[in-house]
Amino acid sequence: MAVGDLSMPEMLPIRGIKIGISEAYIRYKNRRDLVVFELAEDSTVAAVFTKNAFCAAPVQLARHHLQVAAPRYLVINTGNANAGTGLRGLETTAETCQALAQLTGVQASQVLPFSTGVIGEQLPVDRLIAGLPAALKDLSIDAWRDAGAGIMTTDTLPKGASEVIEVEGQRYTLTGISKGAGMIRPNMATMLGFVATDAPIAKPLLEQLLKAVVEQSFNRITIDGDTSTNDACVLVATGKAGGTVIETAQDSRYEALLAALQRVFTRLAQLIVRDGEGATKFITVRVEQGQNTQECCDIAYSVAHSPLIKTAFFASDPNWGRILAAVGKAGVAELDVSKIQVWLDDVQICRDGGAAPDYTEAQGARVMQQEEITIRIALGRGEASDTVWTCDLSYDYVKINADYRS
Amino acid sequence: MAVGDLSMPEMLPIRGIKIGISEAYIRYKNRRDLVVFELAEDSTVAAVFTKNAFCAAPVQLARHHLQVAAPRYLVINTGNANAGTGLRGLETTAETCQALAQLTGVQASQVLPFSTGVIGEQLPVDRLIAGLPAALKDLSIDAWRDAGAGIMTTDTLPKGASEVIEVEGQRYTLTGISKGAGMIRPNMATMLGFVATDAPIAKPLLEQLLKAVVEQSFNRITIDGDTSTNDACVLVATGKAGGTVIETAQDSRYEALLAALQRVFTRLAQLIVRDGEGATKFITVRVEQGQNTQECCDIAYSVAHSPLIKTAFFASDPNWGRILAAVGKAGVAELDVSKIQVWLDDVQICRDGGAAPDYTEAQGARVMQQEEITIRIALGRGEASDTVWTCDLSYDYVKINADYRS
Repeated sequence: MAVGDLSMPEMLPIRGIKIGISEAYIRYKNRRDLVVFELAEDSTVAAVFTKNAFCAAPVQLARHHLQVAAPRYLVINTGNANAGTGLRGLETTAETCQALAQLTGVQASQVLPFSTGVIGEQLPVDRLIAGLPAALKDLSIDAWRDAGAGIMTTDTLPKGASEVIEVEGQRYTLTGISKGAGMIRPNMATMLGFVATDAPIAKPLLEQLLKAVVEQSFNRITIDGDTSTNDACVLVATGKAGGTVIETAQDSRYEALLAALQRVFTRLAQLIVRDGEGATKFITVRVEQGQNTQECCDIAYSVAHSPLIKTAFFASDPNWGRILAAVGKAGVAELDVSKIQVWLDDVQICRDGGAAPDYTEAQGARVMQQEEITIRIALGRGEASDTVWTCDLSYDYVKINADYRS
Repeated sequence: MAVGDLSMPEMLPIRGIKIGISEAYIRYKNRRDLVVFELAEDSTVAAVFTKNAFCAAPVQLARHHLQVAAPRYLVINTGNANAGTGLRGLETTAETCQALAQLTGVQASQVLPFSTGVIGEQLPVDRLIAGLPAALKDLSIDAWRDAGAGIMTTDTLPKGASEVIEVEGQRYTLTGISKGAGMIRPNMATMLGFVATDAPIAKPLLEQLLKAVVEQSFNRITIDGDTSTNDACVLVATGKAGGTVIETAQDSRYEALLAALQRVFTRLAQLIVRDGEGATKFITVRVEQGQNTQECCDIAYSVAHSPLIKTAFFASDPNWGRILAAVGKAGVAELDVSKIQVWLDDVQICRDGGAAPDYTEAQGARVMQQEEITIRIALGRGEASDTVWTCDLSYDYVKINADYRS
């Protein structure tokens, strides 16, 4: 029940990145569930991780490894999150990194581990390690599509974005994959996102770029408000496109790169919402005329998390009273409700805090039939704005999450 | 699909309170949808209202009337919330109070109006006013049960509590009704609650008592996290039991009265959760060993609002990883997850932040089969504790809220 076009584009290889996939039987059979990324030497790497206090063992170790060494490998398993697994979970993650390091002749700290799947069960580390040689043997430059499939959990489709830009006569390629369909309200990154470019970008600038583009992409989506224990998003710059290293935002190539990265990240983030568990509608919640972005986000999330609004959208019911109630409960101080305007796409449903005089149910019903709908809310108290993307709440969301472990 | 015993006890009359009910055709046919309370002169009245910025017209007017006059009548309609209705909504509420005042010879400011139902449609005030004479003709001292039915919306059953206490040779009766099944996360009071006693209580003390008992009852329940625009809770003390007026918490009768009120309010609040839209499980979330009650509540609500946890409970799946994730995302600073213990009733599922070594799925599954389950979370960082009550998220929640207006 994915919403809109989720098709993968041609997934352009990134010079300096090889990907291998194998079957490690972590949880499922007949499923290539283990993915290894090999990064060329001298690649720069930036990553952001979940802010959930219960962050998974691989998140803890990846964060640490990134501080002490230059990563050469990423290892990602699906089927088991290795979260809530205590000290034993840290051990199994460390053993995974150690095993991959031995097979490839790097330091264990040069391996970043990622896991996604069920929380609270120990990682079957022996099976994982047994799958590593096959993944390494499979390494190739043209496996992004398979990697997208290899990291899926309840996703119905693999998710990818890819594009080429030309900046000052230089061609840069950007390619990325993401996954996630439930337990999605990233507070730093998505469940998992891996993006690479062959542009040469210095590490401090790469970190700055990643933060900026994640903030307006993965950090603006929500499916169920449940921030995962395993969210992680990685950006790699291999530099294989050549040219001088881009060091600062003053570099003349910076703006074009930032814009391209933002497009790729936004697409990858929106794909997660479009494939949200049970989703039948893709909903953009835009809040305008706020005093600051914080209050715009507070209201946008209050709307995006409301089960009453999400079920009304599932039913294609323009029940705008529920939108007003969600705006009002967001906790924004001194909100003057008599200044609030609300639109569903081009139809104004609420004017000055009440029903828009010329609004008819037929107009609302027409918009609600669409698969993609924008709720636009103007607060009339400032010039800030922000946008959050979410989906509806359907029978299938309940079904998927009631059945997930069985 | 109500959970547990929701039966009304014998609803004892309160001397000084008469209730009349009639059919005003606000939204439904064949439904007694208009309730009038008549309060004896010299009754003291306290009320708390929603903190939703979009508070309904009757909430605005009731709050104002309570400040300027001593209430003699409450008028409550179901089927229409008169919220998001702008200035016209205030007019129709004022007209309602005015009409009732004229019929009864009091001031309009001595009438407190309450509405519940669909948001964003104008109140059919002519039909409401036309129903008032029949309600007044119906006034009787023994109509609490019918009043409970008269204020229902998506409730499946009327909700009431009633008891008698003896304090220092004096008999006091307490009787109350409540309603609400969706859009329930009171931030001040429930959708609607009306409680009366014949004890003589001074108004300042009555207000203090109401705040105290609401904080530990209606303000500790959540069904879907959606604070309503119309929440209101009223406590009336008619004084008809006689005796000297209870003025302060130092009065020797105070503690017994507080305890009895807390029992009545807690029952009325829990009844709302037990009748939660689509509810099949009644879930108590207790957080202990916190540094303060705020962080205990933050974590309890994070758990109680998690759609992933609510659907897992619907499926009777002891998916405790989702509980850990919800604890971790609550935003409590410097939470040491290695100190966290979690129990489902008597079964410890999580020890020191990981799976409890002796826990088995069979134990968890046994508890999850129950209709009533306590999730107990110990944080190991202090001595504060707090409790929130909620229910699961089922197909029927989606069905009810997708269908509500149709």
